Amino acid sequence: MLLTPLLLVVTDRWWIPFLNDGKRRDIEELKEPQQESVIVAGFGRYGQIVSRMLFANGIRPTVLDHDAEQIEAMRRFGWRVYYGDATRLDLMRTAGADKARVIVVAIDDIEQSIDCVKMVRANFPGAAIVARARNVQHYYELYELGVTLIERETLDSALMSARSTLELLGWQPHRARNLALRFRRHNVAQLAAIAPHRKDEARLIAAAKQGRQQLEQLFAIERQQAAERQARAGWSGTADP
Amino acid sequence: MLLTPLLLVVTDRWWIPFLNDGKRRDIEELKEPQQESVIVAGFGRYGQIVSRMLFANGIRPTVLDHDAEQIEAMRRFGWRVYYGDATRLDLMRTAGADKARVIVVAIDDIEQSIDCVKMVRANFPGAAIVARARNVQHYYELYELGVTLIERETLDSALMSARSTLELLGWQPHRARNLALRFRRHNVAQLAAIAPHRKDEARLIAAAKQGRQQLEQLFAIERQQAAERQARAGWSGTADP
Repeated sequence: MLLTPLLLVVTDRWWIPFLNDGKRRDIEELKEPQQESVIVAGFGRYGQIVSRMLFANGIRPTVLDHDAEQIEAMRRFGWRVYYGDATRLDLMRTAGADKARVIVVAIDDIEQSIDCVKMVRANFPGAAIVARARNVQHYYELYELGVTLIERETLDSALMSARSTLELLGWQPHRARNLALRFRRHNVAQLAAIAPHRKDEARLIAAAKQGRQQLEQLFAIERQQAAERQARAGWSGTADP
Repeated sequence: MLLTPLLLVVTDRWWIPFLNDGKRRDIEELKEPQQESVIVAGFGRYGQIVSRMLFANGIRPTVLDHDAEQIEAMRRFGWRVYYGDATRLDLMRTAGADKARVIVVAIDDIEQSIDCVKMVRANFPGAAIVARARNVQHYYELYELGVTLIERETLDSALMSARSTLELLGWQPHRARNLALRFRRHNVAQLAAIAPHRKDEARLIAAAKQGRQQLEQLFAIERQQAAERQARAGWSGTADP
């Protein structure tokens, strides 16, 4: 049985915390079934960027978050975010998960993220899942549930900092960028390779050390080859350190 | 007066927490002054990726972290991480900050990150700072301290998820990638533009709405132009949605 939107509102109301000034606000809930092609669950730092990027490309995602203060803040910025717990089947159904093509699980809490993914996989097999992972363990839990489009939430920004560091040490920007892309591919491939041993710490350690050595050797060979190419071409002093 | 490394060890020892099994471990501390060109402060998810990327390129950063369990875990994976609080001047000096070319502040705690940056700026003006920011507020605090190479820790991974979503909806991968780069540039430029008004919420809201509209218009114009180019070239049905 599908709960009516009105009942959703009633059962949810008492959960809404009072905001700082002690007054209840009109937190908008999902009253009408939505039919957008994308649902974004979680509207923190991660979900906001995903939503803004989609919005800028003409897509209006249906956004769910269960933090009333966060919703209130975002509504002041002109966003329509709906209040609710994205791990609840009835709410996800009202959000239009039956017809959604993509559900972005951008929830920061690992347990809630996993609960949401399990519920979506079991009930809305037609929707593709794009997920945010807090760390490698979370990544593997999502992976085991059949999710393939997973991003570890700090990986790419850390690689940007690594690029900045290499540039400060004299690497050419395009070279630092290529090295970061190479590192990223290797790192993601290594995650898949380690997957079968992820509960066996000794093998994990051996694999991690071996992976790091392989990558270092790969980069060393590339540095050597680049230096040789530049020497053959008669280039003068533009080699990276 | 420069504290001797021995004294550092003595004053630090009692801070070291007991690990899970109740036994004290031999957590390595900085006994000898270091002279590496890069210091990485904070060896969590972010600092680890930066360090691994540097390591793979032949750079051995001096790594500091104040979480004894974290250090113990990373040492099992073959890393040499030193125990200590990166906001302390004496420890940073022993780590070689006087001669370091780059100090990567990858600390997750906002207050400690700011304390560390203030200390480094005041005492080691020769070292460039590359910083991790938790959010926009943290970004601005770092910016006010003169740091320019700052990454918001979840921005780039969120853009990867946005790219995946666009691809699932039919965008070509190279197009989704270019849109993410464009969004990123716009987003960073907008941060700088908003900086003077960041304590004035009404203007901040107006600027945020305006920035989003501008970006959406820009993308709409680009979509239109791309469609026209493709029509002129007689391409068949490869336009993005």
